[in-house]
Amino acid sequence: MNSAFQAALKATLPPQSLLIEAEALRPYECDGLSAYRQVPLAVCLPETLEQAQAVLRICLEHQVPVVARGAGTGLSGGALPLADGVVLSLARFNRILGIDADNRLARVQPGVRNLAISEAVAAYGLYYAPDPSSQIACSIGGNVAENSGGVHCLKYGLTVHNLLALKVLTMDGELLEIGAQSLDSPGYDLLALMTGSEGLLGVVVEVTVKLLVKPERAQVLLAAFASVETAGAAVAAIIGAGILPAGLEMMDNLSIRAAEDFVHAGYPVDAAAILLCELDGANAEVSEQIMAVREVLFSAGATEVRTAQDEAQRMKFWAGRKGAFPAVGRISPDYYCMDGTIPRQHLAQVLRRIGELSEQYGLRVANVFHAGDGNLHPLILFDANQPGEMKKAEDFGTDILRLCVEVGGTVTGEHGIGVEKLDAACSQFTAAELAQFHAIKAAFDPAGLLNPGKAVPTLHRCAEMGRMHIQGGALPFPELPRF
Amino acid sequence: MNSAFQAALKATLPPQSLLIEAEALRPYECDGLSAYRQVPLAVCLPETLEQAQAVLRICLEHQVPVVARGAGTGLSGGALPLADGVVLSLARFNRILGIDADNRLARVQPGVRNLAISEAVAAYGLYYAPDPSSQIACSIGGNVAENSGGVHCLKYGLTVHNLLALKVLTMDGELLEIGAQSLDSPGYDLLALMTGSEGLLGVVVEVTVKLLVKPERAQVLLAAFASVETAGAAVAAIIGAGILPAGLEMMDNLSIRAAEDFVHAGYPVDAAAILLCELDGANAEVSEQIMAVREVLFSAGATEVRTAQDEAQRMKFWAGRKGAFPAVGRISPDYYCMDGTIPRQHLAQVLRRIGELSEQYGLRVANVFHAGDGNLHPLILFDANQPGEMKKAEDFGTDILRLCVEVGGTVTGEHGIGVEKLDAACSQFTAAELAQFHAIKAAFDPAGLLNPGKAVPTLHRCAEMGRMHIQGGALPFPELPRF
Repeated sequence: MNSAFQAALKATLPPQSLLIEAEALRPYECDGLSAYRQVPLAVCLPETLEQAQAVLRICLEHQVPVVARGAGTGLSGGALPLADGVVLSLARFNRILGIDADNRLARVQPGVRNLAISEAVAAYGLYYAPDPSSQIACSIGGNVAENSGGVHCLKYGLTVHNLLALKVLTMDGELLEIGAQSLDSPGYDLLALMTGSEGLLGVVVEVTVKLLVKPERAQVLLAAFASVETAGAAVAAIIGAGILPAGLEMMDNLSIRAAEDFVHAGYPVDAAAILLCELDGANAEVSEQIMAVREVLFSAGATEVRTAQDEAQRMKFWAGRKGAFPAVGRISPDYYCMDGTIPRQHLAQVLRRIGELSEQYGLRVANVFHAGDGNLHPLILFDANQPGEMKKAEDFGTDILRLCVEVGGTVTGEHGIGVEKLDAACSQFTAAELAQFHAIKAAFDPAGLLNPGKAVPTLHRCAEMGRMHIQGGALPFPELPRF
Repeated sequence: MNSAFQAALKATLPPQSLLIEAEALRPYECDGLSAYRQVPLAVCLPETLEQAQAVLRICLEHQVPVVARGAGTGLSGGALPLADGVVLSLARFNRILGIDADNRLARVQPGVRNLAISEAVAAYGLYYAPDPSSQIACSIGGNVAENSGGVHCLKYGLTVHNLLALKVLTMDGELLEIGAQSLDSPGYDLLALMTGSEGLLGVVVEVTVKLLVKPERAQVLLAAFASVETAGAAVAAIIGAGILPAGLEMMDNLSIRAAEDFVHAGYPVDAAAILLCELDGANAEVSEQIMAVREVLFSAGATEVRTAQDEAQRMKFWAGRKGAFPAVGRISPDYYCMDGTIPRQHLAQVLRRIGELSEQYGLRVANVFHAGDGNLHPLILFDANQPGEMKKAEDFGTDILRLCVEVGGTVTGEHGIGVEKLDAACSQFTAAELAQFHAIKAAFDPAGLLNPGKAVPTLHRCAEMGRMHIQGGALPFPELPRF
């Protein structure tokens, strides 16, 4: 590495905050998407705002790209290092700065774990709603970068809906204070623009989150179905009935069996699909909703509907769902976790098509997902040691994402584009839309040093893929289906 | 007007879509903020997307500024014309394009009135939640431009929380499709960025809104208080108790009496302040909440709590609130409607301070506002025919907005910055933040032709006001109050 650059970093950071030895860099070579690996030039772990600002200014001066990193649990390679770049880890920005129970908000540093926020405010009967499966490990800063969701975002929204304010560093080390504690903030909505921007616009150094009051009661129903299509239709029926569950999750037979073998949740292993429907709120309200949902489920063709008999059983029901990914990992050497969203009414149709594709590719698929908001997570099972299977799995995945876009959905629900979905993103946007994205990037980071090559594909890449009519016309898909 | 420019417009638009005669232009000289007036060069009323695109391209070619206009009900002068500019009215984009009851969404053109959406979907038991007081007249396109709120945004959010997708024209006539029918959309969050951007980034030509299921029951409580401070504290107590009313409105004695004389709502005219608290949801849930809220209100010092005995009385209670502005108009030659937000916990303190300022300025203030989300609407009463009173009212207003920012709030809740609050906005942002806003504007509209001079003050203007340390340091206010 350029010695002047290295000297500048050494002069700025305490020794424990600057990693440059190969073995020290190794743990940073990938995030949760381990199929992509790259050792960075260096890893900086600033402990103060001033150090973080200095690192950015030094990188800008030496034109060295910067990849910000939280807990490294991301699933789309958003924190994948660059060979000639620095990883800026926020791991030591890990303090909860303040809790305001009366106004139900907390000010935290980006390295604080998602679950740690809820733990810290539990004493006040409050919690932070977005709950990605990785919530034990993932950091709130990473959640902001990816606009993370979770089981409960159907009712409580994504990360962007649960934020009040951000402090962000631009590439030149400028501190921006975005948002406010109050209802709305004038000026352009930088809070939403920054959320989900995958580290391309700025580095989050402080987050003020909204907290919710723990519901008086939470109850979960488990419904079994003879086909995934019926289960998919039941999801639409529940929402159509005007019920808003706290969570509405689907698992198909392969995932049911894998999860049952793994955590013994008590799932009906012969069911083609199950739905887990969580209802929360005031006691009376939940009781009413349970009755309403049971009725809808049966009339939608459920073969069996169980209500958790106690908190222990409710936890067991969820343990199966939350353990589904590792459970599938036990029945296949490798799996590829997809993430796409579709309008709910197309669930049954899309699941059927995924089944057909599974036949065509000769690869099994386990469907475990946030059915309520149409956020699919098909797990494609394959064996990386079988020549060609990895490629087959990727092609299969691409077909699934194109299918999502075809029915009016998107190529990512909550995992982001990262490096994984740059090609898929080409089928999502027109040239004009991509050009606008790049213009916004340039408005924040003219030198293009923040997480370059992620999240937004170049026009050139998309053109080469022949996925887009560069001459301006819309693609066949992005148009909303007419109704 | 430049003849080549005029000729180009004439060649593009049917005669009824191009207004250039003085008397035809007059109705467009102002929006809801009638203190500011300016007759534009011309008014274009395109009837098709192609015509709208052509108008923008012609204006770009001739470097003529464009001010998009919906129903012209805005309260901050966002649609104020420019002498050398064109007004682009979306009044003829007034069709509802589609209603999808199953997925609870509607696709509408920007000129559709806010209330017309709820009317059109009422047959399905659905409605569109954001309800600005002007909802009979205001257009959904204008709502998007201002990120409008309303009585029910406490529970159901602002416009930005009730949108799924937008079609937007950039200044060069390019069509951008933003958002999707599904949960989340990849790429930067242009949907939120565009919402509330006051016509500076693009022209909205289609809006896909979320629809909600009409609650089974809605009930309103009216609580009387011996002081505005107690009423303010009661608001914090309700929210603190974990209750989320559909609406939580406050009126002080002056507004109570004005409204009572006007609509005979049956308000207690001797009360220093009243709260209107609407609760909606399932029957059982609402009954539970009514009991809970009554308890909180009394223990917070309410002297009287009434529950509307029937739908007719509920409507009367709301009629008084919704008629409060015109009612105040009857007791004063002129009034100046302010709009700022503050963190709820500062309500009592801020109301007290507004009372003191009222004494100092010798101008009466009527407080009518969305207490639940800390969105104040103090109405400053004055007589424009008394020399100096207009200026006094404006200074008073500015002091109120500075007060909002001092306690961690913002200078606008739902009315936008427009031309009215450019100076106030200076006290909200640092130089770095303003520079970032201008960079984003340039990323969409490099020539700066879309609604120039609105919404975001120039660095120069703020520097001249001495409101900001241009040398980067944060202001005393924008910092979140430490807790």
